This record gives sequence, C-alpha cells and structure tokens, in this order.
Amino acid sequence: MARKATFYHAGCPVCADAETAFAQALDKDAFDVEIVHLGEDKSRLREAEAAGVKSVPAFVIDGRAYHINFGADLAALK
Amino acid sequence: MARKATFYHAGCPVCADAETAFAQALDKDAFDVEIVHLGEDKSRLREAEAAGVKSVPAFVIDGRAYHINFGADLAALK
Repeated sequence: MARKATFYHAGCPVCADAETAFAQALDKDAFDVEIVHLGEDKSRLREAEAAGVKSVPAFVIDGRAYHINFGADLAALK
Repeated sequence: MARKATFYHAGCPVCADAETAFAQALDKDAFDVEIVHLGEDKSRLREAEAAGVKSVPAFVIDGRAYHINFGADLAALK
C-alpha cells in the first residue's frame, strides 16, 4: 500500500520550487501525495501544526515533518 | 534522461531520517540519486558549498540546494 505524503505550501515561490523538485518527484508507486495550500485552506493549519510543521514548504511523511528551505512561517498564514 | 539528484549528509540522525524519507523515495525512473557523506568525503565540500548548501541534510537538484530540516552546519564538517 502506498505511504501517505502530505505537501503543505502557501503558494510562495520557494514553495512552488520545492513542489516541482519534490512533490512531483516522489515515486508514485510508493507514495500517495496530497498537496495542501494552507493559505487557501486554513482548516488544515491545525493538522499541519500537530504534525510539527513550523514553516512552509514542508512535507509530512509517516507523521514526521520535513521542512524544505524556508518560504513562510506558519504563523503568517493564520 | 534521468535528472541528477545529490543528497549530502553527515551521518547524523536527522540526515539518516531524511535519507529514508526522501533519498530512497524519489522516482527512480526520473532521478539518478547520488548519496554523499560529507563527513567522510571532505573533498566534496567545495562542490556542495558552490551549489548553495549551508547545512545537511540537503539535496541539490538541477543546481539548486534544498535543505531538509537541520542536522549540522556545513562549517562543522570542515
């Protein structure tokens, strides 16, 4: 069964770049990738924070947060 | 032709975790992934720095650096 990978972003240039480099590059046979725009879908902020996301762009894979470079602080999206 | 992705690390726990999550998760049909241990192969430090790597673990894909979380500053490996 595919592992779930959630990519959180906010439409920033750093986010778009990371999405191209990683979110579209993960092995599709191994990962079920969901892309969440936290600027447009603020209802997902709580879940991102609970997984340890501090800034975007970030992935959550197997319940762990992986921040890729720095686009925006999560606090700026509230 | 596969794109080149270089994963720089230094054997730290954060590095090992990122390697499992990403280096082994990229689409093998799309990426030729090279894994470089900068603690053991200091001759690669210059090339990593030139690509913009400031800390490990980090990927360089298409000449751009992507830092994943923070394991160690590059300066600590010199």
